[in-house]
Amino acid sequence: MNQTIVQCDAIQSLRDYLQPLRREGKRIGFVPTMGYLHAGHASLVSRAKQECDVVVLSIFVNPLQFGPNEDFSRYPRDLQRDKEIAAQAGVSVLFTPSVEEMYPQKILTTVSVAQVTEPLCGRSRPGHFDGVATVVSKLFHIVGPDAAYFGEKDAQQLAVIEQMVTDLSMPVTIVPCPIVREQDGLAMSSRNVYLSAEERDQALVLSQSLQKAREAIEIGETSAATIRDGIVRMIEAKPLAVIDYVEVMEYPALKTVETLESGQRICVALAVAFGKTRLLDNLIMRIS
Amino acid sequence: MNQTIVQCDAIQSLRDYLQPLRREGKRIGFVPTMGYLHAGHASLVSRAKQECDVVVLSIFVNPLQFGPNEDFSRYPRDLQRDKEIAAQAGVSVLFTPSVEEMYPQKILTTVSVAQVTEPLCGRSRPGHFDGVATVVSKLFHIVGPDAAYFGEKDAQQLAVIEQMVTDLSMPVTIVPCPIVREQDGLAMSSRNVYLSAEERDQALVLSQSLQKAREAIEIGETSAATIRDGIVRMIEAKPLAVIDYVEVMEYPALKTVETLESGQRICVALAVAFGKTRLLDNLIMRIS
Repeated sequence: MNQTIVQCDAIQSLRDYLQPLRREGKRIGFVPTMGYLHAGHASLVSRAKQECDVVVLSIFVNPLQFGPNEDFSRYPRDLQRDKEIAAQAGVSVLFTPSVEEMYPQKILTTVSVAQVTEPLCGRSRPGHFDGVATVVSKLFHIVGPDAAYFGEKDAQQLAVIEQMVTDLSMPVTIVPCPIVREQDGLAMSSRNVYLSAEERDQALVLSQSLQKAREAIEIGETSAATIRDGIVRMIEAKPLAVIDYVEVMEYPALKTVETLESGQRICVALAVAFGKTRLLDNLIMRIS
Repeated sequence: MNQTIVQCDAIQSLRDYLQPLRREGKRIGFVPTMGYLHAGHASLVSRAKQECDVVVLSIFVNPLQFGPNEDFSRYPRDLQRDKEIAAQAGVSVLFTPSVEEMYPQKILTTVSVAQVTEPLCGRSRPGHFDGVATVVSKLFHIVGPDAAYFGEKDAQQLAVIEQMVTDLSMPVTIVPCPIVREQDGLAMSSRNVYLSAEERDQALVLSQSLQKAREAIEIGETSAATIRDGIVRMIEAKPLAVIDYVEVMEYPALKTVETLESGQRICVALAVAFGKTRLLDNLIMRIS
């Protein structure tokens, strides 16, 4: 069932639209995205709709979070298709600012989070999480949401946002949502569109190796090194795969773990490139 | 005329108090301070009262903005006196969190502003403005003010906050308020209490030298070096004075100026130590 959707390109027009709703006591849910929407995003909207009266989805490919040799300019964009998916999913307001609207002058302010940004993608993509924290902070100030919805697929991003919100007492509840996968197990990502048929086929090893890791942990494996090695061996068997990292860490503190302990919440996180496409996947679980 | 004042030590109790007022559409004004209130703070409250329905004043000596050899532990504190001054001035809500309430765990998030933080106090007090921007950002998230009031005495701090608010689209209006002076011209500061009688007497040279600079500019002096030299000579004539900086800069961009130009807004800013006490003063004016 389609519904009408309001689209705002300007910060002020979005504020003007939301202000009376907030005054009426409506609960505002927010799903920040970089567009090229897929079922993962739709699941965030769906969760937001359950909990809020108004769902705002932003589409903004944020230049601050891309490194100089990354895919900012070729990041996939299709606003018309996004609008249809957003309306279908139940978004009330689409916020689609331009780079000029978000950064009319060079932005001099940076929000940085220490520690949780250091391992994993923070190591491979210097400055990336500063860009993420800064834009999410700005978007929160613009939208003023009661709750914001983030996918666990970007587990480190979620940990960074949670840390920022806690540290800066931002008046928003962060709601983590589970990874949504294709039928064959590939984690949904806007970047999957970059994959050739052969790369996509080999990329199934990511979810498969995490599934094996889960099974090993469930039957009592407690050595992080053994878990890690099992995953690395499976991925390295795929000729197109180039591992960036495979790590077992406490979550959300993102500290390295050697021996899994009962009650611990862990994240088995991986980043692997297939050709020019770098994919993330992870498994977050509590050790029983 | 005294009025009842509500005091909150906890973030949640402050939020609970303000939330219904916000829902009713009351305009919330905010005056962040480090306490040991004086007539300068009272002038901020007075301005806030003119423009808002509810005035929140926070007292928090923020450890993040003090360097290791600075005066955090001996910074003057007198809550009982502050409560009286705040009530007298018309504060509705006093927010007095402890360090543990503000930073229950080590804070990992930093808000940094580039460029405007580099000269002046940013050079003498590395990390100071990161501490200021971070705590002000957190206080804004806690209080959720419509407007916040800052004294021009801390001209660089004001420039930093304005830059942060613009860059991060914080939904708050920053209201700069003029310096309040003692009868003899000394700019009000909580740190004036540190001064010996002799130091306090010699410290009058700060406002006097700025007054001379204003007169020189008003009769057509356009050389920043000449203005600066005149001030330096006056201050150096005082045996207890140790100059940290005397600078003539565009305001609020805080870029060095060589020749004053018509229409330009400038700040003549100085920091001078008398004994262990470092005082600030400045003159902000538009060149006619």
